[in-house]
Amino acid sequence: MYRIGVDIGGTGIQAGLVNLQGEIIGQKECSTNVKLGFLKIIESIRKLVDSLLETYNLTPQDIEVLGFGVPSFINQQGKVTCVNLNWYEEDFITTLRETFPEFKVAAENDATVAALAEAKFGSMKGYPYAVMLTLGTGLGAGIIINGQPFVGAHGMGSELGHVVIGINDFKCKCGNNGCFETFCSATGIVRHTKRLIRIGRKSCLVDVCKGELNRLSAKKVFDAYRIGDEVAVQSINRFKKYLAIGIANIINGMDPHIIAIGGGVSRASDIILDGLEEEIRKHILYKKEDFAKVVVAQLGNEAGIIGAAFLEQKQFG
Amino acid sequence: MYRIGVDIGGTGIQAGLVNLQGEIIGQKECSTNVKLGFLKIIESIRKLVDSLLETYNLTPQDIEVLGFGVPSFINQQGKVTCVNLNWYEEDFITTLRETFPEFKVAAENDATVAALAEAKFGSMKGYPYAVMLTLGTGLGAGIIINGQPFVGAHGMGSELGHVVIGINDFKCKCGNNGCFETFCSATGIVRHTKRLIRIGRKSCLVDVCKGELNRLSAKKVFDAYRIGDEVAVQSINRFKKYLAIGIANIINGMDPHIIAIGGGVSRASDIILDGLEEEIRKHILYKKEDFAKVVVAQLGNEAGIIGAAFLEQKQFG
Repeated sequence: MYRIGVDIGGTGIQAGLVNLQGEIIGQKECSTNVKLGFLKIIESIRKLVDSLLETYNLTPQDIEVLGFGVPSFINQQGKVTCVNLNWYEEDFITTLRETFPEFKVAAENDATVAALAEAKFGSMKGYPYAVMLTLGTGLGAGIIINGQPFVGAHGMGSELGHVVIGINDFKCKCGNNGCFETFCSATGIVRHTKRLIRIGRKSCLVDVCKGELNRLSAKKVFDAYRIGDEVAVQSINRFKKYLAIGIANIINGMDPHIIAIGGGVSRASDIILDGLEEEIRKHILYKKEDFAKVVVAQLGNEAGIIGAAFLEQKQFG
Repeated sequence: MYRIGVDIGGTGIQAGLVNLQGEIIGQKECSTNVKLGFLKIIESIRKLVDSLLETYNLTPQDIEVLGFGVPSFINQQGKVTCVNLNWYEEDFITTLRETFPEFKVAAENDATVAALAEAKFGSMKGYPYAVMLTLGTGLGAGIIINGQPFVGAHGMGSELGHVVIGINDFKCKCGNNGCFETFCSATGIVRHTKRLIRIGRKSCLVDVCKGELNRLSAKKVFDAYRIGDEVAVQSINRFKKYLAIGIANIINGMDPHIIAIGGGVSRASDIILDGLEEEIRKHILYKKEDFAKVVVAQLGNEAGIIGAAFLEQKQFG
């Protein structure tokens, strides 16, 4: 038996055939043609899945579950709104069931899907209660309890990126101030660094960007941190301070066995993990007790396919 | 069959005989003689329990579980440190098992115990995934998932009072700044109100306290709010703003079915609940979706006995 995981992103869609050991056997992909609209995108996924089965000479009976990860929340009625995909209250789950009647269909938010992959086969394997933070443009999160995704009573749990953890100098796109995501994401790092430069702080990053601060990226800030650029050091230290507060909040409130950090920002894991445990301990209520290990995610982009493949069907509506 | 719940507090200990419908049939109590030390306190509880059995002509075989609520965290080894009780790494669970060998013994933090009582028999009955906030001197919290206490991987989960939600003008006793508890507890209300008066704001509370601000209480601030005292209005509005942020954090991160507010501060529930839902909605990521109902706890002090009685034995060490 096999499983199929489909990772639906804003620019591309990957469908992968996965064996029961969590290894990707084969993969098909296409670009996400947002302009064509919801139904055409689902149609293109049907073609990817058919093509996978054909290539590997399999039938739907060989597939335990066909799982999907979406860059959005799936509500209790199985509907999805996702601005990046130009989807507005699309009847996602029903359409999947109609499009793939021969399959057991399952779906979750992509951050939850990645957490499931890391908990089953990656950095959090063996820990029943695990939390993954995906630090990229935003901050996504997935919670796994007893090996299963935990998305709360209405399916909207685990949006840890929008937990308020302080006061920031700009508003989050969700409308609030102080969201974890505004401190601890590539966007947060870039915005704070730009602000320091704009108020007149000198930084090699101005030259690196050839004077055009729109070229600034979190990677450039991490690189400048490595050579001791003062603005970069201040910006990354602030990022690390709030990462420790945000993680300590998760520990004080939910106390998982393990927390994995993934996403593009986690490529600078040497900088991120350096001193992090001590900083977290400062913010923990029971300072003498064991608390969650913090590790770096292992599966990278494959987590989207593998996690989706290992979802289980659940009730909607 | 019956159950017995023992509520261990800093000033008094209550032991209650509870039927399987969650009704307290009888109750015995004694004061907590902190000076006598840990073992003498456990001895005095043994006497309370024996006395309960004798009064109601029962034997240990009639008791399904003997449960305890303590004003502290119980670590993975079953040890308890509680400054108020003068207990330091006391071997709580082992001592209970030795003192009550004929009983199935269970124990949890008192806020968790209260949450269990409200979820089984009170304000949160019928909701599998429930969170209770106890707003008193501090802010305690209990999480119930699928009808059972959820205390995390190391037993220290659900300390939502020490989740950082902003920046406050004084440090929390845990050493951090911005803990939910420092904004949303009787202590938090009193400290902020005193601060406003000290910086010269006029308030009827100065007269109410006969000039001695040490007499200020959260109740007095709520009473002054009712008559429109400007300082009290500002202080309570700030409390309500942060209560909404703290609750929205719980919803964004954990998404329970229901949240109950208990503890002394909840006596002003008319003021607390007024406008709270709209304020919470402002801070929620998925503003159009249903989210947790916020209600006032129903069981009052009885929750400590009833919840303790309905704990189940679990593994320690």
